[in-house]
Amino acid sequence: MAKITKINHVAIAVPDLDASLTFWRDALGLTLDHVEDVPSQKSMVAFIPCGDSEVELVKPTADDTGVAKFIAERGGGMHHLCFQVDDIEEMLADLKEKGIRLINETPQVLPGRKMAFVHPKSTGGVLVELYQLT
Amino acid sequence: MAKITKINHVAIAVPDLDASLTFWRDALGLTLDHVEDVPSQKSMVAFIPCGDSEVELVKPTADDTGVAKFIAERGGGMHHLCFQVDDIEEMLADLKEKGIRLINETPQVLPGRKMAFVHPKSTGGVLVELYQLT
Repeated sequence: MAKITKINHVAIAVPDLDASLTFWRDALGLTLDHVEDVPSQKSMVAFIPCGDSEVELVKPTADDTGVAKFIAERGGGMHHLCFQVDDIEEMLADLKEKGIRLINETPQVLPGRKMAFVHPKSTGGVLVELYQLT
Repeated sequence: MAKITKINHVAIAVPDLDASLTFWRDALGLTLDHVEDVPSQKSMVAFIPCGDSEVELVKPTADDTGVAKFIAERGGGMHHLCFQVDDIEEMLADLKEKGIRLINETPQVLPGRKMAFVHPKSTGGVLVELYQLT
């Protein structure tokens, strides 16, 4: 069976990257690795390594994304929890067989990674992302 | 300056531990380390190691806690993000000097750990916990 190896990242929805960095980088003292435009997710993402995981600050670049709606409703906050897995296709097939509702039944393929989301209806309200490095 | 060394855990508020374990343990395949009664937090906590961090499922044992109110309002979900620090008193003093609003200005001392919460007003909506192993 496919295995989760670690928390890859915790994603935090933010309306303004620079303003957020005054807390996460300047106050907490975490190190900003880089900021990346992720057009497939319609967002700018600040990658902040933390131990063996990352904090990702996600600022939407369009109004029609899940993150943009989350910010409109709540102002911002923890948006999703991403686990790294060793075989995402096998994990998705296994979850589906167990009756878990998936947002993506097949992974989205991006440079260096494959990713899929599990529906919060099946997780107790947590948007769970699965991530396989490729 | 005090330093964050890793994400200690991501806490997930749940109304029912056993029901939650059907997802986190049985479907995702994570390993339940143990369940602990934490009277100081009026909660039962399931500790689920994941890589160098943990997922903690937190079930309130009283109605007057922050987690109980969170569940009453939202049904459950990611509740707080806990960073491990090497010197919690120094970190709290530093955050206070930088104008960050703290829920606990001095750490609560529990067996094996000291802990304090940072107010979500200063973090962009994330309840941040700081944790020092002792």
